[in-house]
Amino acid sequence: MSNPVLVEVRRGSVVESRHRGAVAVCDGSGRLVLSIGDVERPVFPRSAVKSIQALPFVESGAADAFGFGNREIALACSSHSGEPEHVNLAASMLERAGLDQSALECGAHWPSGQHAMIDLARSGAEPCPLHNNCSGKHSGFLCTCVHTGLDRHGYVSKDHEFQKLVRAALEDVTGAAHDVDTCGTDGCSIPTYAVPLQSLALGFARMATGEGLSPERAKAASRIFAACMAEPFLVAGTGRVDTKIMEAGKGRLFTKTGAEGVFCAAIPELGLGIALKCDDGATRAAEIMVMATLASLLPAEDPLRAALVEMANPVLKNWRGIEVGSLRPAGPVQLG
Amino acid sequence: MSNPVLVEVRRGSVVESRHRGAVAVCDGSGRLVLSIGDVERPVFPRSAVKSIQALPFVESGAADAFGFGNREIALACSSHSGEPEHVNLAASMLERAGLDQSALECGAHWPSGQHAMIDLARSGAEPCPLHNNCSGKHSGFLCTCVHTGLDRHGYVSKDHEFQKLVRAALEDVTGAAHDVDTCGTDGCSIPTYAVPLQSLALGFARMATGEGLSPERAKAASRIFAACMAEPFLVAGTGRVDTKIMEAGKGRLFTKTGAEGVFCAAIPELGLGIALKCDDGATRAAEIMVMATLASLLPAEDPLRAALVEMANPVLKNWRGIEVGSLRPAGPVQLG
Repeated sequence: MSNPVLVEVRRGSVVESRHRGAVAVCDGSGRLVLSIGDVERPVFPRSAVKSIQALPFVESGAADAFGFGNREIALACSSHSGEPEHVNLAASMLERAGLDQSALECGAHWPSGQHAMIDLARSGAEPCPLHNNCSGKHSGFLCTCVHTGLDRHGYVSKDHEFQKLVRAALEDVTGAAHDVDTCGTDGCSIPTYAVPLQSLALGFARMATGEGLSPERAKAASRIFAACMAEPFLVAGTGRVDTKIMEAGKGRLFTKTGAEGVFCAAIPELGLGIALKCDDGATRAAEIMVMATLASLLPAEDPLRAALVEMANPVLKNWRGIEVGSLRPAGPVQLG
Repeated sequence: MSNPVLVEVRRGSVVESRHRGAVAVCDGSGRLVLSIGDVERPVFPRSAVKSIQALPFVESGAADAFGFGNREIALACSSHSGEPEHVNLAASMLERAGLDQSALECGAHWPSGQHAMIDLARSGAEPCPLHNNCSGKHSGFLCTCVHTGLDRHGYVSKDHEFQKLVRAALEDVTGAAHDVDTCGTDGCSIPTYAVPLQSLALGFARMATGEGLSPERAKAASRIFAACMAEPFLVAGTGRVDTKIMEAGKGRLFTKTGAEGVFCAAIPELGLGIALKCDDGATRAAEIMVMATLASLLPAEDPLRAALVEMANPVLKNWRGIEVGSLRPAGPVQLG
């Protein structure tokens, strides 16, 4: 089965490239409100489920014990651009738990934000694990281990007690088995499990509504979503799509990108969860898909819908700033 | 019509992402030796036709008049990584023609090679048009204008006499009309015309064999290919696929990448030209497609084939250097 083309890249009047994908939208009861393409094929959500992976951090009381608020919780759910605000906050989280960056097992890479990368290079410094886009999540993991008395060493391994907690939360929220057969290793060394888009959409509807979750888990989920929507810069960074959507949404939209063209999202006021993947793994296309899908679910007269439609139709400029083309939603996510 | 999946991205034992594409292989008479997917749909070749765009530079006598050899001709066909060797050579080409970087109309961007970018940032300097990956091509264009007495100002415009020369060369070599209807603007501001992959494959077979070209053009084409194959580093840069393939080929393979997942290539000893495009524009996938296609055309016992097969099956590692997945040719380009 071939998923439909959902995004076209135009240059002049010609469609230069095409991106296919699948989209699932569920309510908290598991009803599929929208289904495009194959929503049953297992997909690695990668970083798109960081908010679910952050449940033990909040539920265990670790976040409260270390005096963390929205900022730290948002960073624990982030794929950040490695800007100084992200790096410094991750460092301060570790410090509260009596640790430093040497405890991080995510590996180091240059900041994913180009400005941050250039600034770091100019300073003469080298990137460290704090610059890894997952350092906030890992800091949350480490704080949870310290607070709950788990040995923090090897906390990234799928057989570590802490990752078993994370996996149990993922299974509970999505309702999907997270099996060793469909387990891969993520860029930051933790396990990632391939599950159907439909299950991920259900999971995000449950995170948004609390439906089907224990009262404690529902409360933690609500707090995590509120933190991310209150601090969109800390979830991503300058110019990034998660930041822009959540800034525009002003508490009405939750979105989170994952590597290889994945997005998980929710519209809490409608009780809907969204999960999508661009077949070829392109972030540029998955961004258009999530904006177009969110827009299509909002009422026609909602100004937020208009803002999303505009963001979903970006112009492409060349190195001299000349307009050369555009990206736009196509086929089933095309906007009227 | 949906093009087939030609590259799979695996993580653990799961196919995480899929890239579709089309491939045309022609001989110099225009016979399609291999055809995968839709090879008649117009495709912007972007930088993949720089060797054809360099014909006026050689044919006009400009390259000889300024005393240029393989190095400068290779750079005129390059999409380079902005490493010091590339930047300095482009500057020296301009200097021979009495110009400097202020004459370049390609725009500036940070070097596309990460090491070159970090080194430039460390030096405290800002990128200039010489760092643009197309600065070698533009330097060749400018040298040709100066040598032939054309006003160099606005040499990037599709209505400029120089671009008309380039367009005539593209039409002659590929046999395809280059119409205003299918004209887009490239990243470096020159026109790019969408033409069928089949025509591009024919064009590269002609460049490799001289078949169907005037004797003068055939000689220039042969000289250009020889220059690129002699100086593969100057055509791309450290760790880049064009460089690696042409280094491995030792004069037996010509390849050139273009933005949005295009490759044009040739195997002169077999008289074959190759053109392909990854539907979604991904370079990582187009690279696998070109290596797999080249390998499939070589005899089973050829060590160059084995080298290409190995390059076409790269392992993916994460930030800690742990092996997490792989890219591999699939479907019609799958290798036995």
